[in-house]
Amino acid sequence: MMKLYNYFRSSASYRVRIALNLKGLPYEPQFVHLPKGEHRGEAYGQVNPQALVPTLDTGQARLNQSLAIIEYLEETHPTPSLLPKDALGRARVRSLSLLVACEIHPMNNLRALQYLRKQLGQSEEGVTTWYRHWIADGLAKLEAELAASAQTGRFSHGDAPSMADCCLVPQIFNARRFDSDLKPYPTTMRIFNACMALEAFDRAQPSKQPDAE
Amino acid sequence: MMKLYNYFRSSASYRVRIALNLKGLPYEPQFVHLPKGEHRGEAYGQVNPQALVPTLDTGQARLNQSLAIIEYLEETHPTPSLLPKDALGRARVRSLSLLVACEIHPMNNLRALQYLRKQLGQSEEGVTTWYRHWIADGLAKLEAELAASAQTGRFSHGDAPSMADCCLVPQIFNARRFDSDLKPYPTTMRIFNACMALEAFDRAQPSKQPDAE
Repeated sequence: MMKLYNYFRSSASYRVRIALNLKGLPYEPQFVHLPKGEHRGEAYGQVNPQALVPTLDTGQARLNQSLAIIEYLEETHPTPSLLPKDALGRARVRSLSLLVACEIHPMNNLRALQYLRKQLGQSEEGVTTWYRHWIADGLAKLEAELAASAQTGRFSHGDAPSMADCCLVPQIFNARRFDSDLKPYPTTMRIFNACMALEAFDRAQPSKQPDAE
Repeated sequence: MMKLYNYFRSSASYRVRIALNLKGLPYEPQFVHLPKGEHRGEAYGQVNPQALVPTLDTGQARLNQSLAIIEYLEETHPTPSLLPKDALGRARVRSLSLLVACEIHPMNNLRALQYLRKQLGQSEEGVTTWYRHWIADGLAKLEAELAASAQTGRFSHGDAPSMADCCLVPQIFNARRFDSDLKPYPTTMRIFNACMALEAFDRAQPSKQPDAE
């Protein structure tokens, strides 16, 4: 069975948990405690030279970076598909996914917040302002994309969940943790609610993981 | 002919310029002046709701997010290929690409630096410390990946340039702009030099763009 090195609260981990669930792929979870710095330890360095979660151990290789893992799952277990069949649709789903993965999430990562606190001497207020700024900036862009396109359906792209939804949902969990105002993003939140009604998204959520605190 | 909305110094733009050149695809450049804020203007908002460069206008649709654009080019113009044929190799190239695109570049984006200066009141020294920290953190991870793998060849993956090299090279240009110390990354720099010997990388570099200042 595949092993997934992950942490309950890591939103990149959550993306992959959703994809595995949607594709009906069982996995054995391995827990890496980020606040204790276990990802920076020597043992985990052998598993993932990037010292980040998640890592998927397929038995044959250890893969990292959540979107690369989801693309791998898509290529090796194509049903149900998390990317559309047409190249333009695939570009749209990838773009929505990368909007979350490159423009929002990195700014709000634990290590970014810790660096602001410790090395740049920011107060908790400064850190929270930073966090909410990038959530608001990024979700406004996501809402603009989703609200403007006829390709948005019940989910981010059409009426079946895609890789874009695997990224959208964990980002909303992060936003709620920091009490971001989500009223300005009605399309995004409608899609979030449609996703959370599915068992694959619900079962993967942070509070339902064995390592949840 | 395809149009590429870009800015000479934007490293996400540079990634796509390289990919277009490697595939021998001509394009008409459209310039978006980021320091003047043209990307946040109403006109460009019609082009790209994410208000980011690059945007590729294929004539049929406008695509954004550099890695989504490169994947689209790969699917629609498969030769020469920028991704390996095997799923594990593709996962590796995507992971190396995302390591740059998600873990390093977002932290060093113009808008992140401006926010540190203006909203969080950081000095230039604080901003430069932040910049170099994420370059050093990310390039150490990239070097570890590249140095440890038998799949690294003349380029990041084997002996032909891939999407990973389209990401690596612009990141080194950024690091040099901020005088980061690059001696700790000999494998990365060997690959950088191999890339820059190719016309496709050289011709796409910031200083050779029509809008270079």
